[in-house]
Amino acid sequence: MNIQHIARSKTAKTAAFSTLFSVFKILMLVRELKMDLRTMILGHFLVISLALNVGFLYRDYCKGNRHYQEFFGSKNECKNASVTLLEASPQPFSSSSSSKAFDGIIDLDHGDPTMYEKYWQQMGDKATVVINGWQFISYFSDVRKVCWFLEPEFANAIIRLHKLVGNAITEDRYIVVGTGSTQLFQALLYAVSPPNSSEPISVVSAAPFYSSYPLITDFLKSGLHKWAGDAYTFNKDEPYIELVTSPNNPDGFPRQAVVNQKQGILIHDFAYYWPQYIPISSPADHDIMLFTVSKSTGHAGSRTGWALVKDIEIAKKMTEFIVLSTIGVSKDSQIRAAKILQVVSDSHQYKGDFKEGQAFFERNYSHMARRWKQLRDAVNMSKLFSLPDFPTSSCTFSGHTFGSQPAFAWLKCEGEIDDCESFLRGHKILTRGGKHFGSSEKYVRISMLPRDETFNQFTERLSSISSS
Amino acid sequence: MNIQHIARSKTAKTAAFSTLFSVFKILMLVRELKMDLRTMILGHFLVISLALNVGFLYRDYCKGNRHYQEFFGSKNECKNASVTLLEASPQPFSSSSSSKAFDGIIDLDHGDPTMYEKYWQQMGDKATVVINGWQFISYFSDVRKVCWFLEPEFANAIIRLHKLVGNAITEDRYIVVGTGSTQLFQALLYAVSPPNSSEPISVVSAAPFYSSYPLITDFLKSGLHKWAGDAYTFNKDEPYIELVTSPNNPDGFPRQAVVNQKQGILIHDFAYYWPQYIPISSPADHDIMLFTVSKSTGHAGSRTGWALVKDIEIAKKMTEFIVLSTIGVSKDSQIRAAKILQVVSDSHQYKGDFKEGQAFFERNYSHMARRWKQLRDAVNMSKLFSLPDFPTSSCTFSGHTFGSQPAFAWLKCEGEIDDCESFLRGHKILTRGGKHFGSSEKYVRISMLPRDETFNQFTERLSSISSS
Repeated sequence: MNIQHIARSKTAKTAAFSTLFSVFKILMLVRELKMDLRTMILGHFLVISLALNVGFLYRDYCKGNRHYQEFFGSKNECKNASVTLLEASPQPFSSSSSSKAFDGIIDLDHGDPTMYEKYWQQMGDKATVVINGWQFISYFSDVRKVCWFLEPEFANAIIRLHKLVGNAITEDRYIVVGTGSTQLFQALLYAVSPPNSSEPISVVSAAPFYSSYPLITDFLKSGLHKWAGDAYTFNKDEPYIELVTSPNNPDGFPRQAVVNQKQGILIHDFAYYWPQYIPISSPADHDIMLFTVSKSTGHAGSRTGWALVKDIEIAKKMTEFIVLSTIGVSKDSQIRAAKILQVVSDSHQYKGDFKEGQAFFERNYSHMARRWKQLRDAVNMSKLFSLPDFPTSSCTFSGHTFGSQPAFAWLKCEGEIDDCESFLRGHKILTRGGKHFGSSEKYVRISMLPRDETFNQFTERLSSISSS
Repeated sequence: MNIQHIARSKTAKTAAFSTLFSVFKILMLVRELKMDLRTMILGHFLVISLALNVGFLYRDYCKGNRHYQEFFGSKNECKNASVTLLEASPQPFSSSSSSKAFDGIIDLDHGDPTMYEKYWQQMGDKATVVINGWQFISYFSDVRKVCWFLEPEFANAIIRLHKLVGNAITEDRYIVVGTGSTQLFQALLYAVSPPNSSEPISVVSAAPFYSSYPLITDFLKSGLHKWAGDAYTFNKDEPYIELVTSPNNPDGFPRQAVVNQKQGILIHDFAYYWPQYIPISSPADHDIMLFTVSKSTGHAGSRTGWALVKDIEIAKKMTEFIVLSTIGVSKDSQIRAAKILQVVSDSHQYKGDFKEGQAFFERNYSHMARRWKQLRDAVNMSKLFSLPDFPTSSCTFSGHTFGSQPAFAWLKCEGEIDDCESFLRGHKILTRGGKHFGSSEKYVRISMLPRDETFNQFTERLSSISSS
């Protein structure tokens, strides 16, 4: 993981400048005005100056200064507080920092979905969860279910959301909860691999495939399963597991199974099959389907995902895996995820309880649309890069007709740039190179889900590369 | 996992009887009194009756009826609510259910620490956690730490608690958080196993060892490590990993490493090294030490544990494992665990803010002492069973001098009973047999941490076996 450098020295300089300027102005005014006004004006300017200083300090703290965090509390609290503070304090002079382009490292290698913070801040306390000290002490949630550590509230919220969005069939399925869909993927490998085979079963996925698949499949050198590469080139007459991610990570295209042989077991990963990213064409209806909270609502820190599984034996073995791996899944996370999913559903079904434009998928559909337009504008100005073109289709949920606006941009460096990741790294933009996805180094995967500030810095930097 | 049967039919009968009795009384009063009092008294009795019925319904729901749970919400909320409700409603007749011995299945196979619910209920809102919708969205907590998904609040709470209790040295150590110490154990196997060896490294532990160790070590048929059994019989001249659990699970005795060869890597599991279970002799000071929230405060449902690790390379590899396994650890759980650990520390350091007798370790030390006395009394009456005897020593934290009162009882069936698990199963007491721990079938492990009601039912049943 790479660290985004923070211009703390710039903030400190701004704070110092602000204070000195204010002191100078006060002295000038004292000289010009009568004594009985002096105190009043002194106070006025002192307040302005102090407010600016506190604003700068908060911005510094919010960008990651650990000492301030320990003093003030959670870093995330400052999002609202700093906005409030900076808006409240009068600005007698414009900050010189806002007009100068950001020149630090922009890290878009990983899909950290912090874009969603803004939406959830605007929701205020609607999605607040209160957990009392005596709650969720037991390992067990509902011992009559196959997945006995699945909280019923979470199961209900999942079913409701799928019914609302129409992106998956939930009837006649077992729900298995996991610590992210990452854990569920591993639970599935365990569940569907032949337990007593002399050779590990092959695991394939069509390139470009999710870069974590090979790592996760092989990192324990398991005797049960092994990574066998690109599904397009798999032609062995033996059992296999094919991972189908749709829309695909990294390139955003909808996907079908590729190998299509008789001995295959298909695992469908629908992490991004939500209407802010892609039109919903029909409810997904496969035997094994994965979803994650991280990419549907943005709450990656909660580490919660779910699988919809038809076969009870697979559900049992997945449960067995998760018990051995982590003795179930955090109930605190499940309860929180349940609340958040319910609020998402409520924002569409009970619009009267929400402000205008707060329907979750509608708001974030618009947000993604703006971002993709912004990115395409930055790319179209260049002759250096290109992006995939997505065919438009109609979304059965929203009614919008649009082309995919995926959570990742699969950017290609055109012309003579063969190693796109290195090229962009030279411009202090961190991305994940195509080779990690079984593809050409001319491609990189770029996260479309950072905070607005970072995304704007990125498109601005990309434009500047193009024009240089 | 076995299910504890619930006498729902008994509850329904009670509810029906209560209603009929109330109706009868109302009719009698109506006949006796004047018309203008009728309404008042009707209303009075109706309220009594309704209150009783609601109380019964709540009790039924709290014992696990899924339909009620879906309607009312979380099962755990009823703990306080039902107590309040039943205390408020007058009881015109005594319940016949309380005087008859419970004859259902008593499941003490697993260490579900629900004993702690009562303490945390009494703490009221002191340990309540409020999480807002915009918080903890990111995957990242503190990117400047080796374990970048560790929440600083949690790290601080851990350090404070260890300092207070004096049960572990935290200086010059890296903290790695895990989804329970179960995940951390696996992270450690990954971190310390040679990555490129032609043979998996041997993993041993002295019998009786924790029954999950062999399962967790081998369930993925990893090429990195393999279970090699009882440490007492391990004598190969090759690298090995020894797991030292102290106090031991299942038998409660303090433990040292057993193999003591040069090529060994020691993993110390201190899940139970807390002053409610065993006197604290000195701060644990080993290179690799595991702890878990589940057994220190009782919050097993949160799935949170931590490792104190001296070697940065081991900490890095553990972090790598947890990233591949679950992309970090739920921040909701960490924040909750932080709060709970802080309250535990506060209950000792700021006693004025708490009621008499609410210091966490003191209260639970007394609770465990009462339970062990109760169990020993039940066992001493018999000639069928025996329990370990623990030497007394002084606790540096509490000042108490006592013998271990572990979270599990390592019960032996004496005489001609060779299969203790089957014998007790015949009396509808579910335990875990000694063979799972690499020991004799004359032993069973019994959880000492269920709710009071279950524990009382258990000792009563055990006494009845002894006297038959």
